[in-house]
Amino acid sequence: MAPALAAANQWAHLGERLHPYDCELLMTYRSGRHFLQLPGPTNTPFRLLQAMARPVIDHRGPEFARMTKGILAELQWLFRTQNPVFVYPSSATGAWEAALANTLAPGDRVLSFDHGFFAQKWCHVAGRLGLDVRRLPGDWRTPPSPSTVEDLLREDTERRIRAVLFVHSETSTAVKTDIAAMRKALDRADHPALLLVDAVSSLACMEFLHDEWGVDVTVCGSQKGMMLPAGLGFTAVSSRALEASKTASIPSAYWQWDEMLRFNERGFFPYTPATGLLYGLEEALAMLKEEGLGRVIARHDRHAEATRRAVEAWGLEIVPCDAAHACSSVTAVLTPDGHDADRFRAVVLDRFDMSLGKGLGELEGRVFRIGHLGDFNDLMLAGTLAGVEMGLSAAGVPHRTGGAQAAFEYLAREDPTNPGGHP
Amino acid sequence: MAPALAAANQWAHLGERLHPYDCELLMTYRSGRHFLQLPGPTNTPFRLLQAMARPVIDHRGPEFARMTKGILAELQWLFRTQNPVFVYPSSATGAWEAALANTLAPGDRVLSFDHGFFAQKWCHVAGRLGLDVRRLPGDWRTPPSPSTVEDLLREDTERRIRAVLFVHSETSTAVKTDIAAMRKALDRADHPALLLVDAVSSLACMEFLHDEWGVDVTVCGSQKGMMLPAGLGFTAVSSRALEASKTASIPSAYWQWDEMLRFNERGFFPYTPATGLLYGLEEALAMLKEEGLGRVIARHDRHAEATRRAVEAWGLEIVPCDAAHACSSVTAVLTPDGHDADRFRAVVLDRFDMSLGKGLGELEGRVFRIGHLGDFNDLMLAGTLAGVEMGLSAAGVPHRTGGAQAAFEYLAREDPTNPGGHP
Repeated sequence: MAPALAAANQWAHLGERLHPYDCELLMTYRSGRHFLQLPGPTNTPFRLLQAMARPVIDHRGPEFARMTKGILAELQWLFRTQNPVFVYPSSATGAWEAALANTLAPGDRVLSFDHGFFAQKWCHVAGRLGLDVRRLPGDWRTPPSPSTVEDLLREDTERRIRAVLFVHSETSTAVKTDIAAMRKALDRADHPALLLVDAVSSLACMEFLHDEWGVDVTVCGSQKGMMLPAGLGFTAVSSRALEASKTASIPSAYWQWDEMLRFNERGFFPYTPATGLLYGLEEALAMLKEEGLGRVIARHDRHAEATRRAVEAWGLEIVPCDAAHACSSVTAVLTPDGHDADRFRAVVLDRFDMSLGKGLGELEGRVFRIGHLGDFNDLMLAGTLAGVEMGLSAAGVPHRTGGAQAAFEYLAREDPTNPGGHP
Repeated sequence: MAPALAAANQWAHLGERLHPYDCELLMTYRSGRHFLQLPGPTNTPFRLLQAMARPVIDHRGPEFARMTKGILAELQWLFRTQNPVFVYPSSATGAWEAALANTLAPGDRVLSFDHGFFAQKWCHVAGRLGLDVRRLPGDWRTPPSPSTVEDLLREDTERRIRAVLFVHSETSTAVKTDIAAMRKALDRADHPALLLVDAVSSLACMEFLHDEWGVDVTVCGSQKGMMLPAGLGFTAVSSRALEASKTASIPSAYWQWDEMLRFNERGFFPYTPATGLLYGLEEALAMLKEEGLGRVIARHDRHAEATRRAVEAWGLEIVPCDAAHACSSVTAVLTPDGHDADRFRAVVLDRFDMSLGKGLGELEGRVFRIGHLGDFNDLMLAGTLAGVEMGLSAAGVPHRTGGAQAAFEYLAREDPTNPGGHP
């Protein structure tokens, strides 16, 4: 029997007698939608794909200028700031560099906390730029404490620390740092260090208030809550950060705010912009506005709560020691000892066509991450959690069944249009 | 407090304290993917949307002719026939008319069975064309019996019945008729009536063998297993049907096979074709070939079995009295007495952004239908079943929880790439 025919015959037990259809069996197409449940890049909605598919226009013409001005105004709305937001054709890693290069000088001391893989990576960038990085040991399951930060800043009597770096939502651990509390810690210590914050997996997912929290530079990327492919990096700034940029001396041309500001004022960019992604960004901002940012945030909170209930019912453990510090955009789950999280992820991908986030750095092989951010809803989450549960079963990872069920019961009970009520 | 702000505040219990973001609360966008779980039209995959978005070409030019010839050959593969398959810019209702108009004369007697809403509708079309329709009362929960058909044909000693109409997968009830057995019934009765079959919700979902089953005309549409929007109607024919078309005299120009055949031979159509949908059809046929038709059918069988297990665990009843006669493309579920299925459907749409099929004809308000056909996979089904279960709960329809869970357990156990086995 030809291999293709044998392959077809293996299906016979599942249904009616099968015709030997399948000499044409190619198996290169997988039916249905891929579940892209990484903690970003996230599922790009069709509206954004359509917007990005529009033909490129002259990036020095009047139509482009109108679009840019609209986008920059809406970005201020999204970041909750009255100050400029800069957009780069870059990944978020580029925006990390922009935040540092525009505000600091080589040899400047920056304070950072080893509380996750992305916190480490930002430090690495800072080191490469010639900064004097003081990386404090941290616990990957607990956010840095504001009182520790306050103490460290008080001890810095010479005011040598020029900036403090935090990752708001540490995507590798799903642990959230309280940025408002960090601002208060800086203020209580009466320390002039700039507050630089990575909001890559929190903006447009979790509450983030650039001005109200007194953040000096917020770093972001397009591929998470903004629902776009990666390719745009963002820095939102404060007037203190803009002031600092006048004397900053880390060499850079690409990231310079002053030049960006001068061009942006007229609706342009100092170099060729990523027009397709900007089309998508314009549409993404419109979608976030249509849903309402409060609703977007409440939706992420609700899906995160449902996911944590599933994890608890499975008898598994999330990475954050305290659920009060858990992110709403992603849930990181520890696999039981002796069960490789990456093998589990491979089974889920193979059997259920779902991509889950891998464990990063010291969590490699011990953690899988469920992204529930961006363009998402209850039934997509239901499919996701069912896929995790079926995957745990298929991969032989010890767990109790009923986690997905527990999440559904919560989602069915918690009506977002009728909080706490019944139909 | 402004209404928009009050609306925003209703979210406050769900998450962190919310900024009064939402004076802009428009609520015109619903996040995430709509679950289109009708029994057709089905979810159109992105590959088809992209194919259909290509610019229109000259429908009398060489590129078009190449495409048409390829499509017509692949349609023979899909319908399992050596005879022509005709494609109309029409809905499947048009293809019903084409099947009748090409094979019969006004006043001809046709035999049909009242076993569902679409069987009734086809009869209605036949009546409008001036045919003498003998519609036998039927049971909507049981398919017509081959032995009854055989008896009726034997009784027709004058051979006045010119055609027998069956709906293979009765989309309104999810009851399947055994077409191969009907062919045998005709043969045993030695009756020359033509066998006309509606395969609208079975082709590319369930095993369907036009030539092997001796079907004379198979009617289909583009919006079910072919994964396209509605807009293309199909008739696959037998040599007997083609022969009958030479003397058929129901007036029609649009549906005429002879003219279609003459144009098709050169790769063209007798009138302006729906080029965009044909692009999609070409791609859909490629996708079905890539997955392998045996696999496509086994996938539908597996999803139908999982769905029936969910329904059983909910303590609800499917429409078919015997699961052996249940369709693999759709599952029709009876709501408990006193619980309006349409109200339930409205709750599901409102709360979970999922469209389920409504009860049609005499089943209106008593049945909802879960479509699990077309471009679909395990996690989409998981989301669908979770949505039904959450909806039953939200709408206060009595049921036992755990139906979705029962389906997941089946899906996790039944590995299509490793039948009966374990990883």
